Amino acid sequence: MVTSSERFLKDFHYLATIGATPQGGVHREAGSTADAMQRAWFGGKLAAEGFEVQFDEVGNQFGLLEFDPKLPYILVGSHLDSQPTAGAYDGAYGVIAAAQAAFEVANRVRASDTSPQFNLGVVNWFNEEGSRFTPSMMGSAVFTGKLSADAALDSRDRSGISVRECLGQLGQLGSRPQIEVAGYLEIHIEQGRLMEREGAQVGIVTATWGARKFEITIHGEQAHTGSAEMADRRDALLGAAELILLAKNLSREHVASQLHTAVSTIDVYPNSPVVVASRAKINLDLRCEDASVLDGAAGQVAEAVSRIEAEHGLEIDVQVTHSWDVNPYDEGLFETAQQAIDEGGFRGMQLKTIAGHDSTNMKDIAPTIMLFIPSVDGISHNIREFSKDDDLVAGLQVLTDCLNRMCSVPA
Amino acid sequence: MVTSSERFLKDFHYLATIGATPQGGVHREAGSTADAMQRAWFGGKLAAEGFEVQFDEVGNQFGLLEFDPKLPYILVGSHLDSQPTAGAYDGAYGVIAAAQAAFEVANRVRASDTSPQFNLGVVNWFNEEGSRFTPSMMGSAVFTGKLSADAALDSRDRSGISVRECLGQLGQLGSRPQIEVAGYLEIHIEQGRLMEREGAQVGIVTATWGARKFEITIHGEQAHTGSAEMADRRDALLGAAELILLAKNLSREHVASQLHTAVSTIDVYPNSPVVVASRAKINLDLRCEDASVLDGAAGQVAEAVSRIEAEHGLEIDVQVTHSWDVNPYDEGLFETAQQAIDEGGFRGMQLKTIAGHDSTNMKDIAPTIMLFIPSVDGISHNIREFSKDDDLVAGLQVLTDCLNRMCSVPA
Repeated sequence: MVTSSERFLKDFHYLATIGATPQGGVHREAGSTADAMQRAWFGGKLAAEGFEVQFDEVGNQFGLLEFDPKLPYILVGSHLDSQPTAGAYDGAYGVIAAAQAAFEVANRVRASDTSPQFNLGVVNWFNEEGSRFTPSMMGSAVFTGKLSADAALDSRDRSGISVRECLGQLGQLGSRPQIEVAGYLEIHIEQGRLMEREGAQVGIVTATWGARKFEITIHGEQAHTGSAEMADRRDALLGAAELILLAKNLSREHVASQLHTAVSTIDVYPNSPVVVASRAKINLDLRCEDASVLDGAAGQVAEAVSRIEAEHGLEIDVQVTHSWDVNPYDEGLFETAQQAIDEGGFRGMQLKTIAGHDSTNMKDIAPTIMLFIPSVDGISHNIREFSKDDDLVAGLQVLTDCLNRMCSVPA
Repeated sequence: MVTSSERFLKDFHYLATIGATPQGGVHREAGSTADAMQRAWFGGKLAAEGFEVQFDEVGNQFGLLEFDPKLPYILVGSHLDSQPTAGAYDGAYGVIAAAQAAFEVANRVRASDTSPQFNLGVVNWFNEEGSRFTPSMMGSAVFTGKLSADAALDSRDRSGISVRECLGQLGQLGSRPQIEVAGYLEIHIEQGRLMEREGAQVGIVTATWGARKFEITIHGEQAHTGSAEMADRRDALLGAAELILLAKNLSREHVASQLHTAVSTIDVYPNSPVVVASRAKINLDLRCEDASVLDGAAGQVAEAVSRIEAEHGLEIDVQVTHSWDVNPYDEGLFETAQQAIDEGGFRGMQLKTIAGHDSTNMKDIAPTIMLFIPSVDGISHNIREFSKDDDLVAGLQVLTDCLNRMCSVPA
């Protein structure tokens, strides 16, 4: 098992050169040229190991190894797409580790005397990040029936290009593989600092934090930024600023319950130096382990919206785009993961994920194991994102052992 | 003189159909197809009256009527370009009134026995609005030597197209007319409510309010909007929101001294739903009659910038893009304008302009008269912008009389 780690690290660090930015990290948004390049390279790796490579109807990239057409599949994967000017580890680590783990297990199956109980599949989900095309976790959402393929294919980026057009031009639209999924595994960087603080090498994800996500459109009216009297103005950008500060203040009020809040996108019209904005659109996210805190904070947003409307003469439209409470993973598989961690002699810990992952979708259709490795300083969605080679290899070893156990292959 | 008003109104209301939006008003940003269309139409009007039409090196459109090559010119004009989804009156009224006034005065000169003392020119300045290409008042700034032609031609819109490329493709780049300018006149809608409150029909602009304008770039760091700990975040959009609210609060602190403040543009990076913004760029404008209030407010901005940097772990770069104190027009010509107002039997008033105009540039190279007519409810940079036909015609009559007086043509 250890001999494969060098090959894995070489692959991982080669991948980091595709779409690399001059300052470090990578820029490989879904459907970009860099994404197409890495998918071409990755497909070649899968094919070389005897896996059949195919794209489904929304561009998810599968590598399937069928031992017996009657057997269901165990899938292992993550996503290769990145945020803009982001890190080389987010998603990409999980995909390369998945492929390496699948190659190892495939070789053991082939070398074993017993009949395999499962076929093996590696998957690179399309558009987990959702920066260019919304929503995020798009590919796994379609695969698990949470989003229609048409809704995904009709999504357009800011320049008006649809997922359908984009994937069509890249030749990455195919059809759904006719497979039964009996289990799913994914490994990912933590993107937080809990594991680093605890000194843990491999984490077992037990649940996803609850979240309430909003898209908020503020409607004001165009006016001259100079000559319009201040009292006459209905400034949409001012309303947006009030909500951005509200989100920050909500997190301060709930430090103890760890309410994470964010506004990270804004689009204003007409965005002219001398015209008061008539429209501003922002996202506003609330995340917490505690559903009652989330509901309370969502109520505070609604109250603030009414106050801001009245105070500034605005009309504010609030759409809930996502809402979920704490969302547990399969408790029955925590022990399997712990055994793999113990077997390797690593320090493990259980923790919740704050970020969403493709496994958040997959766990609802199949027994799922989700693993973490530490992120140095918790930095992510940033070119300075970093995880140590030793941790990458430790995670790979545990992932491989877990896959082995889920496939019931004799050690 | 009254007989020309019907023709003038017909022209003005025809012009309002070019680049009209379905909801009303016009959308005719500098160098757009709609701007090219109205310039083609307007050039035809000038030519039909015997004016020689030419574009200068930054696309200013001139119609010149030379009585004698040795004589200097009196110019009269404004701008046809508009803000996005804006009103049909801002600038356009002044250009059509300028042409009609020049046509009238030209006819009188031709009918007079005395030798003319000035040649006559009509001008449609390029890109007064500055919404697509910065800075605003671009064409008159180059004409008056305040901005180099290269700096103007190199300015690019958000899609990367330069003024040079844009005007070159439209065939609207020419060379500077070799003329001496002995005087300038402009009429414009007020874009405020002072005249309406005072019941005045024609206003004499005595000065431009002082202003301090800033371009502020806030530098933070990319992070995951969910998993990054709140205390670790350096959120550039949050810094921008603080400054937007600061601007509003400054105006509230200085209600008595009428400090007008605005932030109307924002561009953030990476503008992704799950990445804390690493960069936000805003404009921030302060306008006031009182230079000491402006300086005090600018000081408060600087103090707030330091506080916001420290509080949120940001680096904020503040560039001053414009700074001027109260900027008077030619006092010697107020009496000329008042005589024209009295002659027509109109109610006049003197007032300052808060907005900048091409005359703000022109008055520094030639004796200048700047006139206003009322804006209903002070609404401007808005499709609901409106001025009454009676006021349009009253303004035209006074402008024509002023032009007559400046040209020393016998009545």
